[in-house]
Amino acid sequence: MMQTMELSAPGSIVPTYPLFIGSGILPQISEAIPKAFASYHPFLITDANLLKHGHAARMNVDPASMFIIDPPGESSKHIETVAKILNALDEKGFGRDTIILALGGGTVGDIAGFAASVFKRGVPVLQIPTTTVAQADSAIGGKTGVNSDGSKNAIGTFWNPCAILVDVDTLKTLDERHYVAGLAESLKHALIADASYLDWIQENVEAIKCREPKALLALAQRNAFIKGTIVERDPYERSGLRFVLNFGHTIGHAIETASDFRILHGEAVALGMLGALSLGAMMKVTPEPLTERTARLLRALGLPDALPEALSADDLVGVMAKDKKNVEGRIRFVLLSDIGDIYAPENAFAHPVERSMIVDACSTLK
Amino acid sequence: MMQTMELSAPGSIVPTYPLFIGSGILPQISEAIPKAFASYHPFLITDANLLKHGHAARMNVDPASMFIIDPPGESSKHIETVAKILNALDEKGFGRDTIILALGGGTVGDIAGFAASVFKRGVPVLQIPTTTVAQADSAIGGKTGVNSDGSKNAIGTFWNPCAILVDVDTLKTLDERHYVAGLAESLKHALIADASYLDWIQENVEAIKCREPKALLALAQRNAFIKGTIVERDPYERSGLRFVLNFGHTIGHAIETASDFRILHGEAVALGMLGALSLGAMMKVTPEPLTERTARLLRALGLPDALPEALSADDLVGVMAKDKKNVEGRIRFVLLSDIGDIYAPENAFAHPVERSMIVDACSTLK
Repeated sequence: MMQTMELSAPGSIVPTYPLFIGSGILPQISEAIPKAFASYHPFLITDANLLKHGHAARMNVDPASMFIIDPPGESSKHIETVAKILNALDEKGFGRDTIILALGGGTVGDIAGFAASVFKRGVPVLQIPTTTVAQADSAIGGKTGVNSDGSKNAIGTFWNPCAILVDVDTLKTLDERHYVAGLAESLKHALIADASYLDWIQENVEAIKCREPKALLALAQRNAFIKGTIVERDPYERSGLRFVLNFGHTIGHAIETASDFRILHGEAVALGMLGALSLGAMMKVTPEPLTERTARLLRALGLPDALPEALSADDLVGVMAKDKKNVEGRIRFVLLSDIGDIYAPENAFAHPVERSMIVDACSTLK
Repeated sequence: MMQTMELSAPGSIVPTYPLFIGSGILPQISEAIPKAFASYHPFLITDANLLKHGHAARMNVDPASMFIIDPPGESSKHIETVAKILNALDEKGFGRDTIILALGGGTVGDIAGFAASVFKRGVPVLQIPTTTVAQADSAIGGKTGVNSDGSKNAIGTFWNPCAILVDVDTLKTLDERHYVAGLAESLKHALIADASYLDWIQENVEAIKCREPKALLALAQRNAFIKGTIVERDPYERSGLRFVLNFGHTIGHAIETASDFRILHGEAVALGMLGALSLGAMMKVTPEPLTERTARLLRALGLPDALPEALSADDLVGVMAKDKKNVEGRIRFVLLSDIGDIYAPENAFAHPVERSMIVDACSTLK
């Protein structure tokens, strides 16, 4: 069974694209691609993990038309990898009639999407996210990018895929820690956009933990709808609305950095959301009980609800002070008025907060 | 005195942008930039030639906010230069509120435009072309790019500038050979789009050769109008119309390559246009006398009208056969029905031609 949604890509050459969601649909998809894109030559970009787990083989692509990112993960996410991909495409005689198939997690999607956007001034890319983070979040919204020597995602483009294909079966081979960490982005979508989605997650914790296909399909659909709707209204991060997707990320990024990336992005965002809820409660913006309800849900899902011993609130604020998203040196937060209700006086979605108050909020995570 | 035109950029975030044309307007422009882009931090990308001739100093930019491409020219046009620029921006603390000033010829514009399009997922770029080629052609139309190890412009984006500033005074310091070579693109615009423009060039050969500001201003204006109108109708090279800008380039690129780039792009295009006119005449598509009229005009401007001894027609066709613009292995040409009148049966702008006929056409250039 396959579900289809239409996502919006204002300002792109093709203004909408389809998202296909199903369980075990990779073989069916790989058969359909040569017909659907008959005048294009497919080139698969994936990583060593996906190869190991057999997902790459399911794509039915000639090994000569593949690029395997190795080592997988963040350490390969730089412009040299992109240069290697582009030279490989060129050497193998690929031209403007190339379609890039990006099979993998966030890193693969970001690198492959960026490579597609700059090869021959842009060729189509089909995003096939295979992790909870990528399916819930990074594959949707058109952001591509790699890190510079000094900054995350400093080099990139907005380049929407020609389609997104979500096969929830690919999540089966994901290790438990990464699987669970990625659920934090689903929780984020529920908190910023949809109280009924939060209720649904709470009622389906067991099914989600057991990776039941029905639950995974529902997650994929609701995440795509929520993120797709926000991105449609602010595709290039110009109105500020898209910033609400950073809920939990102000403290979250600081935790990732301060822990030297030993704490995964999703785990850090989970803690960051708790911190932002506490902060909202202190500021009398967010209802008090929401922090505890979220903490219970995090624990139920297997996500952390407290900082490791080694990280202090002061350390975190020190890191936040260096964040490039700060404006005029002030650290900014997305706050909630309630579940699904962003605090947005005068249409501002990002709120500068005093340093001492942030320290207090981070201290509640100890 | 400064003239202004509005150019169209369909599909871009800002759908139109201004082109300013004047003589000696660089100082005036550099004063206006900080006011016009008050919330942006300017970063100048230029090359060692522009620095030497004092044009870079006229921009009034802090040397810490500059990147000098060195050596100037094609040999620096690769992704490593872009990576260096992006890392420099990042290290110096530039962020999303950067405006790139691209001061130079085609290479500087292509590299800087590409860097702007991928820094922080795209920052504005102000193109300030300083050569006849860049002012007539490459600064207009939103194409950016660098070469891969194997192909020219294999890596790039469509990224329209926020404005183009043409100061014809910058042409004064251009050496005679490069100055004259760049005039070929003006001739191309006249041939494909405007018989009265061809007459005007013919009547003003002396003024153009002497680099009289009034003539240079008129050239800049007419080129921008012609190229701008074509690009507006086919901004992403999808309808095929934009291919008409390749008039003279099928043979031209082959001459450049076969001569190991000893023949300049404009010189090669001049010869390529003659070849395409001969070819059209042989096919009874193009009026016979147009070839001789064009050859006379090329000679008057100081452009070549014959191939060097060392290059044979067979060599050229061998190179053309490898061109990536070929479709199903067939070499394709833009042909003229008359001046300003593209031969386009059934709306096709590119016509496959038999190899033997191309050899014959190239032989007329001996």
